[in-house]
This record gives sequence, structure tokens and C-alpha cells, in this order.
Amino acid sequence: MKYVRFRDPAGAVRRGEYENGTVHFANESYDLESDDIDVLPPSEPSKIVCIGRNYADHADEMGSDLPDRPMLFLKPPNALAGHGDTVTAPAGKERIDYEAELGVVIGEQCRHVPEADAMDVVAGFTCVNDISNRDDQNQEQNWVRGKAFDGAAPMGPVLATPDEVPADAAVRSRVNGELKQDGSREQLIFSIPELIAEITTYLTLEPGDVIATGTPEGVGPLADGDEIEIEVEGVGTLEHSIRRP
Amino acid sequence: MKYVRFRDPAGAVRRGEYENGTVHFANESYDLESDDIDVLPPSEPSKIVCIGRNYADHADEMGSDLPDRPMLFLKPPNALAGHGDTVTAPAGKERIDYEAELGVVIGEQCRHVPEADAMDVVAGFTCVNDISNRDDQNQEQNWVRGKAFDGAAPMGPVLATPDEVPADAAVRSRVNGELKQDGSREQLIFSIPELIAEITTYLTLEPGDVIATGTPEGVGPLADGDEIEIEVEGVGTLEHSIRRP
Repeated sequence: MKYVRFRDPAGAVRRGEYENGTVHFANESYDLESDDIDVLPPSEPSKIVCIGRNYADHADEMGSDLPDRPMLFLKPPNALAGHGDTVTAPAGKERIDYEAELGVVIGEQCRHVPEADAMDVVAGFTCVNDISNRDDQNQEQNWVRGKAFDGAAPMGPVLATPDEVPADAAVRSRVNGELKQDGSREQLIFSIPELIAEITTYLTLEPGDVIATGTPEGVGPLADGDEIEIEVEGVGTLEHSIRRP
Repeated sequence: MKYVRFRDPAGAVRRGEYENGTVHFANESYDLESDDIDVLPPSEPSKIVCIGRNYADHADEMGSDLPDRPMLFLKPPNALAGHGDTVTAPAGKERIDYEAELGVVIGEQCRHVPEADAMDVVAGFTCVNDISNRDDQNQEQNWVRGKAFDGAAPMGPVLATPDEVPADAAVRSRVNGELKQDGSREQLIFSIPELIAEITTYLTLEPGDVIATGTPEGVGPLADGDEIEIEVEGVGTLEHSIRRP
């Protein structure tokens, strides 16, 4: 099953079933790309827990060692953006990068989840762009200016239940139609169950919380007006643009 | 004015006026320490933005340089705890520390706030314990296991409007009645308006969001069963205990 959260023409927030570009709710159907609806992020996370260096090829391109346990960082709710949105990056920065990621949407409140039970707390998967302000990220201990700025986590449009997404699902980005990243869920250093077990050793996850599982190699800069696509095989494609003041 | 959020004997969440140990709501009055009410954190932050090394004497005791701009890190809502609560620290750690802080509670949604207008977005001040799991903090790039674990941000019980809190308000901690920290708001390297201006250059703050402004020297370890008090002059005293599994 696939779902899309959206604001309908009357302004009401709905969660519809999604199939082949069309969102169905009650007796109504809408084209995902129609101006009649405002597509929203697929959940309302209280926090987004992000994983750094979870693909060996990306750690290598960043000149970083492989971590011996998941490297965690946080994006708060102000970082959310949705399908079709224009994200305004922090002003006056040299380098703002895209990072295509498979997002895990949590379905129930949980803590101390064993790996073997971890998929039970997953509502589904979505597409995330972990937008990164490298100017500040490279100067900060904690990546707040670098990773937690407004709009730094475009997400969606589809939440796909786990059965829709193959174990080797492709994770791709395109900028202005050109393929930039082409990784696979199989390449994750720490698997989704390992991430859930580790995070919930310390933090309670709430329904709607998102784990952004890390990005494969091929990250790069965004220029003013660029159109970004984040594709996760079995989920769909998130599209948004960027403004660089 | 001083306020306390609490759950009344019927389970309803109320915000009462606070005076001399008593909370007033409508026709009812309750002793703050009474078992009839459950004292809650003074707001429901979507994020807590914390400031590291904002007192020179604390940076010195940690062997850290002074930052040339505010050092930011994040605690998500799972970190919240309230007055009278028992916080369970992450299991099996050597060193869990208290850190007394003046908390700033935001009153309105805001971004790009100039320093000169910053106090207009402040609802009031509260007491925060920035509990720190040093074992993990010292090994992490981003302090998630170290600072964002469940219960890592006890807060409250009182929200005091800014006029109640002197410019040189004392910020103190006591453990089992013994004074451990005794700093002053005057010692902040970056003032509250400077912090609000810097944070809102990047992040939108929401009503109820909290800025934890940093801790003075004298931080130290907590043992199982310790009783902690965090006092901010003009606000009051937050009390909670800790469990060290």
C-alpha cells in the first residue's frame, strides 16, 4: 500500500491511498501533481534521526572513516518540507548539497526495540533529501546550522509499506534531470533493524518520527533554481526546487 | 507573573498562576508539591536549542576554547522531564553529569529576529538541567546519545516573565542539598538576544520552544538516587532525582 498526506481543496488535511499518480480519499480522487491539493510530508515527526556515513562509498568521498556504530544527528520539525516545495537555503553560503536517502517512518511509540522486532515498529518508507549546508557543517561540533535549518529535510510524497520496497531498492538523486546518486538499500553499513535498535537504546521514537538512513556517494552542490529529484525504488520520487539567496 | 503547567486531579492539563508555592487555576488552588497535581514542563517545545560553552569558567573546566559564535546543539521532545520526576539515565555509563541552565521559553513563531527585538519573542524563563552522558558525548560528532536521550532535559516548574528575573540572576545547582554551581546570567558569553538572533538566522522558533543558555562551572557526576536542584534566581527551583541503571 502507498499513502499520501495532503491538504484538500477545502483545506482539510487528509491521508489518501496512492496509486499510479492518483491520490484517493473517500469519493474523491486527485492527481498528485494537480494544483487542487497541497502535498504534505507523509508524517508529522517530532524528530528526524539522521545517520551519517552509512554507505562506505559516501564516507570515502567525504574523506571520513567508517563508523564503528551508527553516527547519529538530528533534524527538528522546522526542517520539514514537502513534495513540490521550494526550499530557501541559508543565505550567503558557498556550498549547499543534496543527499538522497531512504526514510523510515515509525508507526508506533517504542523504546528498547530488539533488532528482531524492529520491522514491527515501521509504518513504511519514504524519500528524504538530507540537504546540507557544508559551510557551517564543516565548522560545527553539532550540525545545527549545517543540517537543521528550515527546509533542510524535504520528504515524501509517498509513504510505502515495507512490502512495496525491495531489499535492494535503488536510492537515487537527479538534479535538473541528471542522475547524480545511484545507490542501493543493500549497501547500508547499518541495516534498518540495527539503526532502530541502536537509536531506541537511548531515545523513544514516536509515531511519525523518521529515520533518514544515510546517503550513497555522489553528493554535490545545488545552485539557485535547481530542480531536485530523490527516488527510492518501490516508493516513488520526491521533487522540489531550491532557492539560494 | 509566574506560571505552572500541571495535570489537575481530573487529569486535565492546566496552566495556573504561581505564587509562593501555590498554583491557582479558576477557583482551585494547589500546593506545588502536593500529590494532587502532576507538575508538567512549562511548555511543549518542538525542539530545545542548547548552547555549549557559554560561560568562560565552564569552557575552561572542560578544557575547551571559547567559541567565536554560539555553539548549538539540539534536544528533541523525548528529552523532556518535569519537576519531581525521576530520570532514568542510559544504562551502564560511567559518567552522567548535571548542568544547571537558564532556559528561555519562546512565545511566538519567529525567524530572522534582530537582537534589538529579541526580547519581544520571549514568553519567559525557566530552569533546565542539561543532563549529559559524557561516555557517549566524548565519542560522538553530534551529541545525540550524549545529550538527547529520554529525560535529558528536566525543565520547570515555573515559567517566570522576563521582568521577574534580574539581569544578574544566579544560576545554581545543588546535589543532595550541596551547592555545586553558582553562576550568573551576567556571565553569559552570548546574551539571550544574541542567541535568539543567531538561532533564527537558520531555524524558525515556535511557541514553547526552549533555548537552554549554557552552564557555569562546577558540573559533576550524578549517582543513583541523587536529588538534584536547579535554581534560577527570580524563577524558582526545579527538583528531580536520577536513577542510574
